[in-house]
Amino acid sequence: MGNSFGQLFRITTWGESHGGGVGVVVDGCPSRLSLGEADIQPDLDRRRPGQSSIVTPRKETDTVKILSGTFEGRTLGTPISMMVRNEDQRSEAYSEMATKFRPSHADYTYQAKYGIRAWPGGGRTSARETIGRVAAGAIAKKLLRERWGVEVLACVTQVKDIAVTVDPDAFTVGQTEANIVRCPDAAAAERMVALIEATRSAGDSVGGIVLGVARGVPVGWGEPVFDRLEADLAKAMLSLPASKGFDIGSGFGGIGMTGREHNDAFRNVDGRVRTVTNRSGGIQGGISNGETVYFRVAFKPVATVMHEQDTVDVTGAETTLKGRGRHDPCVLPRAVPMVEAMTALVLVDHALRHEARWRE
Amino acid sequence: MGNSFGQLFRITTWGESHGGGVGVVVDGCPSRLSLGEADIQPDLDRRRPGQSSIVTPRKETDTVKILSGTFEGRTLGTPISMMVRNEDQRSEAYSEMATKFRPSHADYTYQAKYGIRAWPGGGRTSARETIGRVAAGAIAKKLLRERWGVEVLACVTQVKDIAVTVDPDAFTVGQTEANIVRCPDAAAAERMVALIEATRSAGDSVGGIVLGVARGVPVGWGEPVFDRLEADLAKAMLSLPASKGFDIGSGFGGIGMTGREHNDAFRNVDGRVRTVTNRSGGIQGGISNGETVYFRVAFKPVATVMHEQDTVDVTGAETTLKGRGRHDPCVLPRAVPMVEAMTALVLVDHALRHEARWRE
Amino acid sequence: MGNSFGQLFRITTWGESHGGGVGVVVDGCPSRLSLGEADIQPDLDRRRPGQSSIVTPRKETDTVKILSGTFEGRTLGTPISMMVRNEDQRSEAYSEMATKFRPSHADYTYQAKYGIRAWPGGGRTSARETIGRVAAGAIAKKLLRERWGVEVLACVTQVKDIAVTVDPDAFTVGQTEANIVRCPDAAAAERMVALIEATRSAGDSVGGIVLGVARGVPVGWGEPVFDRLEADLAKAMLSLPASKGFDIGSGFGGIGMTGREHNDAFRNVDGRVRTVTNRSGGIQGGISNGETVYFRVAFKPVATVMHEQDTVDVTGAETTLKGRGRHDPCVLPRAVPMVEAMTALVLVDHALRHEARWRE
Amino acid sequence: MGNSFGQLFRITTWGESHGGGVGVVVDGCPSRLSLGEADIQPDLDRRRPGQSSIVTPRKETDTVKILSGTFEGRTLGTPISMMVRNEDQRSEAYSEMATKFRPSHADYTYQAKYGIRAWPGGGRTSARETIGRVAAGAIAKKLLRERWGVEVLACVTQVKDIAVTVDPDAFTVGQTEANIVRCPDAAAAERMVALIEATRSAGDSVGGIVLGVARGVPVGWGEPVFDRLEADLAKAMLSLPASKGFDIGSGFGGIGMTGREHNDAFRNVDGRVRTVTNRSGGIQGGISNGETVYFRVAFKPVATVMHEQDTVDVTGAETTLKGRGRHDPCVLPRAVPMVEAMTALVLVDHALRHEARWRE
Repeated sequence: MGNSFGQLFRITTWGESHGGGVGVVVDGCPSRLSLGEADIQPDLDRRRPGQSSIVTPRKETDTVKILSGTFEGRTLGTPISMMVRNEDQRSEAYSEMATKFRPSHADYTYQAKYGIRAWPGGGRTSARETIGRVAAGAIAKKLLRERWGVEVLACVTQVKDIAVTVDPDAFTVGQTEANIVRCPDAAAAERMVALIEATRSAGDSVGGIVLGVARGVPVGWGEPVFDRLEADLAKAMLSLPASKGFDIGSGFGGIGMTGREHNDAFRNVDGRVRTVTNRSGGIQGGISNGETVYFRVAFKPVATVMHEQDTVDVTGAETTLKGRGRHDPCVLPRAVPMVEAMTALVLVDHALRHEARWRE
Repeated sequence: MGNSFGQLFRITTWGESHGGGVGVVVDGCPSRLSLGEADIQPDLDRRRPGQSSIVTPRKETDTVKILSGTFEGRTLGTPISMMVRNEDQRSEAYSEMATKFRPSHADYTYQAKYGIRAWPGGGRTSARETIGRVAAGAIAKKLLRERWGVEVLACVTQVKDIAVTVDPDAFTVGQTEANIVRCPDAAAAERMVALIEATRSAGDSVGGIVLGVARGVPVGWGEPVFDRLEADLAKAMLSLPASKGFDIGSGFGGIGMTGREHNDAFRNVDGRVRTVTNRSGGIQGGISNGETVYFRVAFKPVATVMHEQDTVDVTGAETTLKGRGRHDPCVLPRAVPMVEAMTALVLVDHALRHEARWRE
Repeated sequence: MGNSFGQLFRITTWGESHGGGVGVVVDGCPSRLSLGEADIQPDLDRRRPGQSSIVTPRKETDTVKILSGTFEGRTLGTPISMMVRNEDQRSEAYSEMATKFRPSHADYTYQAKYGIRAWPGGGRTSARETIGRVAAGAIAKKLLRERWGVEVLACVTQVKDIAVTVDPDAFTVGQTEANIVRCPDAAAAERMVALIEATRSAGDSVGGIVLGVARGVPVGWGEPVFDRLEADLAKAMLSLPASKGFDIGSGFGGIGMTGREHNDAFRNVDGRVRTVTNRSGGIQGGISNGETVYFRVAFKPVATVMHEQDTVDVTGAETTLKGRGRHDPCVLPRAVPMVEAMTALVLVDHALRHEARWRE
Repeated sequence: MGNSFGQLFRITTWGESHGGGVGVVVDGCPSRLSLGEADIQPDLDRRRPGQSSIVTPRKETDTVKILSGTFEGRTLGTPISMMVRNEDQRSEAYSEMATKFRPSHADYTYQAKYGIRAWPGGGRTSARETIGRVAAGAIAKKLLRERWGVEVLACVTQVKDIAVTVDPDAFTVGQTEANIVRCPDAAAAERMVALIEATRSAGDSVGGIVLGVARGVPVGWGEPVFDRLEADLAKAMLSLPASKGFDIGSGFGGIGMTGREHNDAFRNVDGRVRTVTNRSGGIQGGISNGETVYFRVAFKPVATVMHEQDTVDVTGAETTLKGRGRHDPCVLPRAVPMVEAMTALVLVDHALRHEARWRE
C-alpha cells in the first residue's frame, strides 16, 4: 500500500529495479491535453543515471511508452499508463545484497516488514521507482503551464558545505541546466562539481539542498486544515528517496526573527493584493496567496559508499559490506526533476480540488 | 475539504472560533479500548490558552465531552464524536478584523478562496481548530501505549536563539512538564521563559523548535513509497498552524557529513538488529527500523503583534492594523501537545495499516 | 471505519441510539450557500418516528442544530457539523436485548465483529443513524437545486403485494406528501395504509419498494469505470438499513427484452440529444445522459415483530425473544427521505468531481 | 477518475480497446503469496471473447504478463502490475462509430463528458477494460482461499425467460464449467444455449441473471454504516458493464413476506451461532454472519445488434446505425468470471480492513 499519490490527479507507481519494468498510472488528468512521449522524455533524461560524470553510471536509456489514455495525441480523460522497460540488469553485481543488509538502506526494514525482499538492485527501493513520478510530473507540469500559467522549477543550492543564495523569483531553467550539478550560480556550480568528483574518487558521497519553486500560482489553492498546500508539499518531498527535511518560506531560518520582523505586510500593487516580503513562501493558512511558492528539501549523502562498513546479515550475524562497481556520489542533480515532479503533482491536484467547488 | 486525516484511524475535525464549538469525529478506533473524558482532558489542558503567563490569555476551560462511540467506558468500534463548546466569544474585540486582513494570517487567503470568511476570532483559522486534533491524539496515544508499548512525547528545544541539545532517548515527560515552556533542560527553560515574557511585554512574538519523539515503535511501520512514515509525519507537522519546517534524524544538519560518516552501521544487540548511531531517525526506506523516531518542527513567531502594521482592507485599500487586547507571544508550549497528537495519529494509522496485512 | 461517504462532498456520521446524540460532519460543501436549520429540519421531520400512525411511535422531536460551517446564514466552505440530541432513551424497555440476539438484526454480527455492543436501542444499528444522512442530504438537495437545477425526489411504489406503476417524470412531491405512506397514487396509498395498519395490529411488519428519481441531471456526471453513477447509487442505497436490492432503469425487468427491443434510440429534440425511451435510467456507460435518473430500492420487512421467535443468547444458548412495546410496521414512509438524501449525496459528489476537470 | 477500487487491496485498471494494451496495478496485496501468471490466466480464459459459439468472436488470446510485485514466485508486498497486449485491432471495422453514437452504448456520454472519445472498439468503454479486474480478482480469489478458506464462485441462473433455481450452497464449479453458458443446471443450460444461438442468428442479444456466491466467509467482515458488505458488493456489481440490478439474499423477492415470515431465526449448531434460513444472504447489519453470501446481478441484453437503429451523429443530426461484423449475443457466460472477480475484490478488501483492528 502507499503507492498512490493525489486525490483528483492521482498517480500509482509500480516496479522494481530488476523486474519487467517500472511505470505509473495517472488517473484524473483532464481530457484534451495535447500529450505524447516527447512531453515526458526530457524530464526522464534529466532524471536518468549516466547523464554526467557526477551521477551514478548505470546504463539505462529509460525510454517511456504511453500505453493508454491518449487518442490522436490528446488525453482522453481515462487513465494514462506509462512504462519504462528495465535494461541494465546485472543482478550478479549485487549478489552480496541477497544476504547482507546495506547500512542506511531499506534492505533490513523491507525484509522485516514484508518477510521477503527483491534484493537485485534494491528492488522497489531503487531510485528507478521515481521514474513513474517524473513521468507523471511531466504531465502535471504541462497542465499547470497550459491551463494556469504556473511554472514549476527547482535547482541545487547547496552541496555539503558549498551553499549559495538563490532568489526564487529570479533564477532560470537555462541557468540551472547550464551545468551538470543544476545550480543556477555558475561559479558555485563549478566548485560543487569539483567536490562531487573528488567525493566520487574517494568512494564516498555527499548530500545537500534542492530549492523547489512554483511561480504564478493563483490565490486560493490548498485545503485547510490537514491538506494545507505546504503539508502536501512536505509529504511529497519527504516521500522522495534520501530526503531528510523540508522547510517553506523563511523555514528554520525564520526562527531568528520576531513576529514583528517576520510578518509579510500587505500592499496593493496595481489593484492586486501583494505582500512586501515573502517569508510565508507563497502560502498563508495553508492556501496559496499569489506570491511565489518556494521551499527547501534536504537530501542526505547517498548510503552506498565504496568502503567496508559494519552490518549484519539476514541471520542477524555481524559482518561487513563494501559497495562495489557503480555508486552515486550525489543524488542532487537527479533530485531536481524529482522535486519538480512532486511539486507539480501537488499543485495540479490542489488546482482541481479548488476548481471543483469555486464559483465566482 | 481537507478536514480529515488518516486512512484507518481517521479523524475529521470541525469548528470555528466563535461558532457553537469545535470537535472531532474519530473513525476506525479499535473496539474495547478503555476510554473516558479523563483520558482526553489532560492533553487539552496542556493545549489550552491561559495555562501560564507565557501563552495567550484567552479564557477557555475547553472541557471535552464524548458524544458517541463508547459504552460502559469502552470503545465500541463506532465513530467517537467529541466536542468542546466555545465560551470566550468577544467578537467585538476583533471587529477591525471584519474589514482588514491581518499580515501573515490566513484572512486574505480564506477570503480569496471561499469568498466569505468568519472573521470573529479568525473562525476556522483559529488555533481552536487544534482542539479536535489533540483530543483525537489522546486516544491514539493511549492505544499506542496499551497495544504496542509505544511512547509518544515532545518538547521545546529552541526559542528564538536559545537552543538546547536534547537526547531523544533520554528526556522525560516529567522534565518537560516541570516548566511552563516545556523544555526538559531546566536552566534553558528559565531563560526561554524570560525571553518570552520580555517579548510579550514588547507586544511581539517569537518562534522556535519542537522535538517530536516516539519510543518503542516496532520494526515495520510505514508504507512505501508515498506513504513513508516520515512523509506522513512531515505532512502532519506542516498541517499545524505556524509550522514552517520539518526534518527527521540528522535532517538539515546531516548535509555536512559524507555518506561514510553519516551511515548507521548495523549490529546485533542481544539477538535484535540495531543501529550503532541513529541518524536515520528511526526510519529507513520509509519504514520504522525499531530505533527511536525523532524529528524537529520549526514554528514561526506568531503573526499577531501589538504594533501597527501595513496591510490592506477587503476592498484592497492600503491601511494599517494593530493587534489589540490579548496576544500569544509564543506558540511553542502549546504546540508540544499538538505535535504529540499528530505524531500519535500518524503512528496508529500506520500500525493498523501494517497489521492489516502482516502474518508471521 | 466506514462511516464516511463521498469524495468531494464527504459526510461522516456518528452516534448511537442512546448516547449523547447523533450527528454528521459535512466536508466539502461549497461556500456561500445560504443555509440554516430551517433548510434541514423539514426532511428530518419526514424521517422522524411518530410522524403518523403507520410508523414507529418512538417520541423524538429530532431538532437539528448547526454547530459550525456557517456564518451569517451562509456556508463558509469549512466543515458543517450538525447534531441532534437523543431524547427518548428508555433502555430498560430493551433490557432483554442485552443478552439475546434479535433475529435478522445486527446484534450478533456487531458482537462478533467488535466484541462489544451498545445494546440499548440497538446502538449504532438504530435507524437514528440515518438522521445524519438526511441532514446532510438536505444540504446536498439544496445545492443541487440552486446550482444545477436538479430535483431529487422519491416515493413508495410497492408495499408487500400492493404495487403501482409510477412515471418517474410525472409524479410530484405534492402527490407523495399528500398521504402518510408517501405513494403518489392516492387510491393505492389508501390500500397501502390499510395494509400497514392491519400489519401493525398483527404485530408484524411489511416491506416494499421505494422509487428514487433525479430530474434535470446534466449530461456528464459519473466517473467510469468503478465510480459509475449507478454504482455509487447502488452502494448508497444498499447502505440504508433494511435495503435488499437496487435496480436502475429497466433493471431486473429489462431481462425479458432483447437488445433490439431494449435499446434507447437517440433523436434530436430542439437541438439537444435525447433518447426516445429511457430504459437506461438516465445513465449510459456510468455517465448521466441528460434523461431522468430513476431506480428502485427494495426494503425488507422490518425485523422487529411482536411475536416469540427462536434465537440464541450471548452465550450461544438457544432461547426465544419477543419484541415489546413499540415496533415499526413498515419502514417505507421514512425511507423516502433517506433515499432522497443518499441520491442527492451521490449526485452532488459527482457534480463536483465532474466540474473539477471539465473545461469548455 | 474512478479507475481504482478498494481501500486496502486496491486495484487501478487502465487501457482502451485499441491502445497499447490493458492492465491493472494491484496495491496492498500481502507479501509472500505464491503467485505466477498461471494463477491468473485461467480466469482470463473464462472471460475471453471467442471461447465458445455463444460469445463475441473477437480473436484475442489475452495473455497476461506480471511486470512487478513478485520475486521468485512470491508476492513482495509491492504493487503488482499486470498487462495484456491488444491484438485484434481492426479499427476500420468500426469506422462508422467515429461519427455516430451507438444507441444504449456510452459513446454519447463519453463524448459529452470528455469532449473527446477513442471510438475504435469503444475505447475505454470496451469490455476489454474488465481484463484488469479479472486478473486482479484471480489474486484476490487465491488469497481468500489460502488465507481464510473462502470460496468465491458464480453462475448463470437466467437467460431472458429461461430461469432456474440454484442453491447457493450446493452448486459446483464443475457443474458450471461443464457447459458454455455456465449454468449449473445441465438441462436448462442446453435450452439457454439454444436460445442464445438463435438470438445470435437473428442478429439480436439477450440478458439475464448471474448468481454470485461466497462460501466460508467468517463472521465479522463489513464496515457499517456506509461500507456495509452488501453496499460494496452492490457497487462492485453495478460497476460491471451492462449490469442493471443487484439484490442480496431474499432481495426483491423478500417483499412478498412479512417480517415474521422473513426473519432468520438463530440456533446453535455444534457450538456455532447459525441461522435456520438465510434470507439475509449471509450479511446482517452490513457485516457477514458466517452464512453463505449470495446475491443476484441483472445484466441487460448487449446493446450492439445487427439491425438498423435510430440514432444521431456527433453533429446532432438524426441518422441510423447498424451493427456490423461481430456481435456478442449474450454477455452472461463471460460475466461469470467478472462477478467472481469483483466479489473477491470486495471480500479481500473487507477481510484486511477487519483484520487491521481486530484483536481477540
